[in-house]
Amino acid sequence: MSSQSSSNGVATKLAAVSSIAETEYKTTTKDQCRQNIPTKKQLVDPYRQGSLVDGGVGYRQTVVIRSYEVGPDKTATLESILNLLQETALNHVWMSGLLGDGFGATHAMMKNDLIWVVTRLQVQVDSYPIWGEVLVVDTWVGASGKNGMRRDWLIRSHKTGHVFARATSTWVMMNQKTRRLSKMPEEVRGEISPWFVTKQAIPQDVCWKIKKLDDTAKYASTNLKPKRSDLDMNHHVNNVKYVRWMLETIPDQYLESHQLSSIILEYRKECGSADVVQSLCEPEEDEVPQGNDRNVLGKFSLPSDILGSHGLLGSFDMGPLRYTHLLLIKGEVVNEEIVRGRTTWKRKNTIPFSI
Amino acid sequence: MSSQSSSNGVATKLAAVSSIAETEYKTTTKDQCRQNIPTKKQLVDPYRQGSLVDGGVGYRQTVVIRSYEVGPDKTATLESILNLLQETALNHVWMSGLLGDGFGATHAMMKNDLIWVVTRLQVQVDSYPIWGEVLVVDTWVGASGKNGMRRDWLIRSHKTGHVFARATSTWVMMNQKTRRLSKMPEEVRGEISPWFVTKQAIPQDVCWKIKKLDDTAKYASTNLKPKRSDLDMNHHVNNVKYVRWMLETIPDQYLESHQLSSIILEYRKECGSADVVQSLCEPEEDEVPQGNDRNVLGKFSLPSDILGSHGLLGSFDMGPLRYTHLLLIKGEVVNEEIVRGRTTWKRKNTIPFSI
Repeated sequence: MSSQSSSNGVATKLAAVSSIAETEYKTTTKDQCRQNIPTKKQLVDPYRQGSLVDGGVGYRQTVVIRSYEVGPDKTATLESILNLLQETALNHVWMSGLLGDGFGATHAMMKNDLIWVVTRLQVQVDSYPIWGEVLVVDTWVGASGKNGMRRDWLIRSHKTGHVFARATSTWVMMNQKTRRLSKMPEEVRGEISPWFVTKQAIPQDVCWKIKKLDDTAKYASTNLKPKRSDLDMNHHVNNVKYVRWMLETIPDQYLESHQLSSIILEYRKECGSADVVQSLCEPEEDEVPQGNDRNVLGKFSLPSDILGSHGLLGSFDMGPLRYTHLLLIKGEVVNEEIVRGRTTWKRKNTIPFSI
Repeated sequence: MSSQSSSNGVATKLAAVSSIAETEYKTTTKDQCRQNIPTKKQLVDPYRQGSLVDGGVGYRQTVVIRSYEVGPDKTATLESILNLLQETALNHVWMSGLLGDGFGATHAMMKNDLIWVVTRLQVQVDSYPIWGEVLVVDTWVGASGKNGMRRDWLIRSHKTGHVFARATSTWVMMNQKTRRLSKMPEEVRGEISPWFVTKQAIPQDVCWKIKKLDDTAKYASTNLKPKRSDLDMNHHVNNVKYVRWMLETIPDQYLESHQLSSIILEYRKECGSADVVQSLCEPEEDEVPQGNDRNVLGKFSLPSDILGSHGLLGSFDMGPLRYTHLLLIKGEVVNEEIVRGRTTWKRKNTIPFSI
C-alpha cells in the first residue's frame, strides 16, 4: 500500500496503476498462456485459497504464516500483517469482477478518470500469529460518509476463530487528471454500493487526532533514502517501508521488551524514489494509558490476569506505551508531510507464544 | 536462510534453531490449540498446498506470486524467490516427519549434536514470474560427496510447466558443541539417504571459483548495519538482506536496464546483529560471456532470437554481464568474510512480461 501525491494534501493510492494495467493487456501471443490475476467475477479461487462470503460481498482467504514472515521471536512481523491486508484487499477487488482495466477502479470510475486514494489505516493487533499458524483473513467494504469507502479486515485463527488482528481503512476518490478529490458519482455508487456492508472490524470510537511533530521531537532519523527494493509496483515507497522508518526511531531496548498493539497511519503525500525522508518520533510519557488503551483495543478485551501480570496498564518504569510519528520530506522552503502515525504498545509476554 | 559462525570458516545454517525449537515444546495448555508446523509425516498439506511427490521423497507446493512480492516491473523480486526456496525447503523437512525437536536435524543428528550448515547456494532465473502467476515449486534432496547433502529446487508455471527458476544448495553437518565439521554418521545416513534422489536442478558444470575481492574493488558500500527487521528467527541476518547488500552496490542505471539471471553465494561466516558490514563489488568488464554464460544457464537455452535481439551475448556498450561480490566484517586486525557472490545479468526485455 503506497500513496501518490496530490494537490489536496491527501495521500493517494493506486494512482499509477491504470497505466500499468493498460500495458498489461497489450500482451503477445506468448503471454496469453501466462496465468495472472483473474479478471472475471469468481466465487472461489483455489490457488489463493480465497472465496466470496457473506452473501457474496465479502472476501475470505486462508493463509499460512511462512518462515520468512516471522521475526526473531517467531511471531509474524507487523510488516507481514500489513502485506496480508494489501494482498487480500486486492484479491477481493479482482474476485469481485467490478474492475475496468484499472487496479481498484470500477468501470464507471475509469470513465470518469477517478482513482481510489487511501487517507487512513488503523490496525489493532491483539496477538501475533506464530510461524506455521493457519489464518483466515476476512475483508469487506462499506460506506464512509457520503463520498468515501471503508475497507475492513479481520484476521483470525483457522482452528479456533481467535482474533489476531483487526484493521480498517478509509478511501476517497480523486480525479486523476485534476488531482482533486471528487464526490462519488451516482453511476459509481450504483456499482459499488451493493458491496457495502455495515459491520465494522473496529468500532468507530473517539477518533484520535494525531498531532504534528516538529524538530523538537525526542527521536529523529534523517537522510532516509528509498532504495530500489523499497519501491512497489506503483513505483512508490511501500507502506511497509513507512512503518519501518517510523519504528526504527524507537530505541532497540524498548522494541525488545514491547510489542506494537495498534497503529494508525494518516496519509498526506506520497513518497517517491528521489525523496529524502526524515522520521520523527515522540513518546507520550505523561499519559496514563488505562482507559484510552481499552478504547484503542476496541471490542477485544485482554483477560484481566494478562492485564495485571504483564502490565498493559503500565507504569513509567516500563517506558511509554504510546508514540506519535511523522515522516516528512525536508524541503528548502517548507517541509512536506508524508504520513502521520500513532502507535500503541504493550509489554511482551515472556511465555513463548502464549498471547 | 541465514548462517552462523564456525571455527572452520564455513558458514553454518540453522544452528541456533535447536534451542528455539526446544522452548517451543514447553507450551502452555492455552497454546496446545494453536496451529503451528506439522510434526508428523504427512503426504498432503492442504493449507500450504503442498504434498510429497516422486514416490514420496520430493515435495511440491503451489504458490501464487502476491502483490507485495513483485517490484516496480510487476515481476517477482529475487528476494521473493529466495524466500520461496527457504519456505518450501522447511515445509519439505517438516512434512517428511524425520525431525527430532530441531529445525532441520533428524533424530540421529540431534542425538549426535549435529546441525546442518549451508555452504553454497546457486539460483538461476530463466524468467521472472509476474504478479498473480501460479507457480509449482518442487524441492528434493540428494547426496553431495560422501558427507554432504544437496537440496535442489525447480520453480515452474502451474499452467504451462514453463521453468522460471532452478536452484541448488550444498549442506554439511557440524557438531554444535565443537563447531567443527563432521562426517555423516551411518545412523544419520540411514535416516536421510532414503530421501536422496539423483536428479539435479542445475547440472554440475564447471564450478565457478569466486575470487576474493579486496579494497581495490570498483564499488563498495561501507558501514552497513543490520536492523532489527533484518533478523530472522535464528537471530541472524537473513539471506535476503545479504543479497540486498550485494546488489545495492551496483549502479541504479544498470539495475534498471538489466535483470539478474543467476547468483551463486558461497557462505563463510554468519553475520550477527552487532556486526558492521562492508559490501564490495567488481564488474567483469573484460570477459566475453558467450560460452560461459551458456554453461551457467545449464540445461536451459534461451531462444536464439532473444539471445540475438536482446544481447545476452553482450557487448561493452551494455555494461558488464557479470559481477563478483564480497560481504565482509571489517575487523581491527583482520577482515572476516561473510559470503562471496557472483551474479550474472541479462538486458531486460522491453516487452512487458514476454520473457
